[in-house]
Amino acid sequence: MKYWNLLEKSGAKTGDKVRVETTKGDYSGTLLPSSNFLEIKLANGYNVGFMPESVKNLKVIEKPKIKAKKNSDKISVNAFLPLVTILHTGGTIASKVDYSNGGVSPSIDSEEIISAIPEISRMVNIKSVFVTNVLSEEISFQHYKEFARAVKSAIQEKPKGIVVTHGTDTMHYSASALSFIFENLPIPIIFVGSQRSSDRPSTDAKLNLINAVRFITKTDFAGVAICMHAGLSDDSCYILPATKSRKMHSTRRDAFRAINSKPIAKVSDNGIEYLQNYERYEGGQLNVNDNFEEKVAIIKARPGLRSEEIKFFEEKAYKGLIIEGTGMGHIAISEGKNTENFEAIKSLIGSGCIVCMTTQCIFGRTNPNVYSTGRRLKEAGVLFLEDMTTETAYIKLSWLLGNFGTEKAKELMQKNLRGELSERIGTEFI
Amino acid sequence: MKYWNLLEKSGAKTGDKVRVETTKGDYSGTLLPSSNFLEIKLANGYNVGFMPESVKNLKVIEKPKIKAKKNSDKISVNAFLPLVTILHTGGTIASKVDYSNGGVSPSIDSEEIISAIPEISRMVNIKSVFVTNVLSEEISFQHYKEFARAVKSAIQEKPKGIVVTHGTDTMHYSASALSFIFENLPIPIIFVGSQRSSDRPSTDAKLNLINAVRFITKTDFAGVAICMHAGLSDDSCYILPATKSRKMHSTRRDAFRAINSKPIAKVSDNGIEYLQNYERYEGGQLNVNDNFEEKVAIIKARPGLRSEEIKFFEEKAYKGLIIEGTGMGHIAISEGKNTENFEAIKSLIGSGCIVCMTTQCIFGRTNPNVYSTGRRLKEAGVLFLEDMTTETAYIKLSWLLGNFGTEKAKELMQKNLRGELSERIGTEFI
Repeated sequence: MKYWNLLEKSGAKTGDKVRVETTKGDYSGTLLPSSNFLEIKLANGYNVGFMPESVKNLKVIEKPKIKAKKNSDKISVNAFLPLVTILHTGGTIASKVDYSNGGVSPSIDSEEIISAIPEISRMVNIKSVFVTNVLSEEISFQHYKEFARAVKSAIQEKPKGIVVTHGTDTMHYSASALSFIFENLPIPIIFVGSQRSSDRPSTDAKLNLINAVRFITKTDFAGVAICMHAGLSDDSCYILPATKSRKMHSTRRDAFRAINSKPIAKVSDNGIEYLQNYERYEGGQLNVNDNFEEKVAIIKARPGLRSEEIKFFEEKAYKGLIIEGTGMGHIAISEGKNTENFEAIKSLIGSGCIVCMTTQCIFGRTNPNVYSTGRRLKEAGVLFLEDMTTETAYIKLSWLLGNFGTEKAKELMQKNLRGELSERIGTEFI
Repeated sequence: MKYWNLLEKSGAKTGDKVRVETTKGDYSGTLLPSSNFLEIKLANGYNVGFMPESVKNLKVIEKPKIKAKKNSDKISVNAFLPLVTILHTGGTIASKVDYSNGGVSPSIDSEEIISAIPEISRMVNIKSVFVTNVLSEEISFQHYKEFARAVKSAIQEKPKGIVVTHGTDTMHYSASALSFIFENLPIPIIFVGSQRSSDRPSTDAKLNLINAVRFITKTDFAGVAICMHAGLSDDSCYILPATKSRKMHSTRRDAFRAINSKPIAKVSDNGIEYLQNYERYEGGQLNVNDNFEEKVAIIKARPGLRSEEIKFFEEKAYKGLIIEGTGMGHIAISEGKNTENFEAIKSLIGSGCIVCMTTQCIFGRTNPNVYSTGRRLKEAGVLFLEDMTTETAYIKLSWLLGNFGTEKAKELMQKNLRGELSERIGTEFI
């Protein structure tokens, strides 16, 4: 049995207390992060590893102590204040380095922080919900389903809004995913991450959380957004549109930027300053479509790209491909061996795969009508996605295919559904 | 015979007058852009297509008239002015739309522009050299070799500097490539592109060329750089470091930005303002290494990435892979099925492929030491490339493998050779 199958079957996750029954005896300890064999830290401090073949049974004895108060009954409720639900999904905002094993310990620091932030408890009643605890680079389509379930369940209690704490690496992918999953959202769902972990003096977790909650209490915005530092100083945050934002710096606290758009608002002690038009709840039933097609990929155009890399997606029967092209949306198709790329793209489209084009410039929009390369790709059936980011395009394509099938996906890919496409005017650049 | 083989054998390129000998007779006309069959425009204006199988012979009758003056004998030479050689490689700066066939006509407009720019002929004697004429998305490793040959040949005439006109889509890849090819460059090589074609009033070709030449005449910078608009107004250009720049907007004239670095200088009517330290010629022999390993690729980390995509590179015996990771350089390796990605990466490294990590944030640097994901990838042998851009990393890896083999490439990949790695201090952000 493969290691991850073993984990999946048992439900065990890093940090859990587990019992391992092996051919050579039984062991108990804390599950350590590993990839191909099972490793636990024993009570005496030693680590022991087991090959999956030798494991007869793996059982979770105890999940790590989650300090989150599971419902609002246990915290003091001020009847005059609105309810805000916080969904904890993991990431830096919910982790600290555990020096005993060198791994990331599954503590929910964000909950501790919230308890420690009087600003928040003066504004709202908080209900904390533990959804999952993973580093955001590990998050995938099945997590989006979990997030959706948690949001749906939270909405039934009619909170003023929902905060989702999330790792920053893929926060823009997840925010896009929730944007597409929910149609007619009646409330704001604000993703909050932090670039510095909560146990560091320079942590951005506190300000980001305060401003997310502050925004929720005062806004009539309804939809999904991201709340992160607006600049290097510790005084204001931007509320960024979920489908038009991107992590643009690996470490800075103001890493998240609106792409081909503006922040929705700036939030600080001084209140909310709106910076562009935003969605409001217009009535209508909440629609939830939470499926994702997994056979979707991204390929980045580059000098020397070989047609075998494109053919791979046809051989493996992919349903969707985003080409992150150069400039206005190009990939080598005309000179010498590059003509094989064009054949491969046409053949891939012929096989039923939806092929779309974004730009690796990040800023600006694709345009198939200026150069012969663009015209030929468009004629071949490549869908040019204007100013949509590659990341949002990828999530949207997977979501459309997962819920509505190929024909409908083709029809809707170039239509604006959740603000992912902007008008030609007023685009922003760095 | 495949179409591109036919083209390669005959040396025919789009725009050439060709004779096609087929089983049904002979035809002459202008070669049109096509991919899988041969298409020509006859003298009477009609287009005819031929399947490659039916073509017995393809012969170039006449290359398009290149208006470039091939050497300085034919233009008036001012003995008091320095020589600047312009290498024409194509792109928007050297093209205009040919409405007769809808393709891009191989005119060397940049040469026409230069003749039409009195500012340039007052500063220098120009020698124009036609290298190739392709849209930059089509440029690949074999073109870098052509560029290198042209540069070597130009240097023998001891110009004050060289201007390379180039399409903007992949100009940063080509500038990186020339940076690595030449060690101990005695002069500046300045890449110049334009975002608006020369026949448009808003063209940036003129200002970019003037400022590139102006910079060359006055600087003691020796190395490769890019000269493009500094902002939206038509008054100044930036000289950008070749290995630390990137096209960051699909259409704006100030699309090129220094990444994790500053421009080398700002150039305008007012002269040169240096913005950071730069390389000078310190003596020593010019070393030229112009080979590139073609079996190198880029893969972008993302939610839902499947291990089969990584395994592909092992199955196809790739020698190098750049993972454009999330955040500080992550890819999903720990949760559930993601563990198969880790196995695939380890196995790929085991097969002799060099696997490197950059960040899709664009700005900032990778760091394997903060999170468990980074530490595990580093332990597995992934080389973290600090603040090197993905594009430069790709070119560098291909160049190192092509000239020095795997062991030397591993050793040099994380060492700064041409300014591609910056110190930890003073990095810039948007």
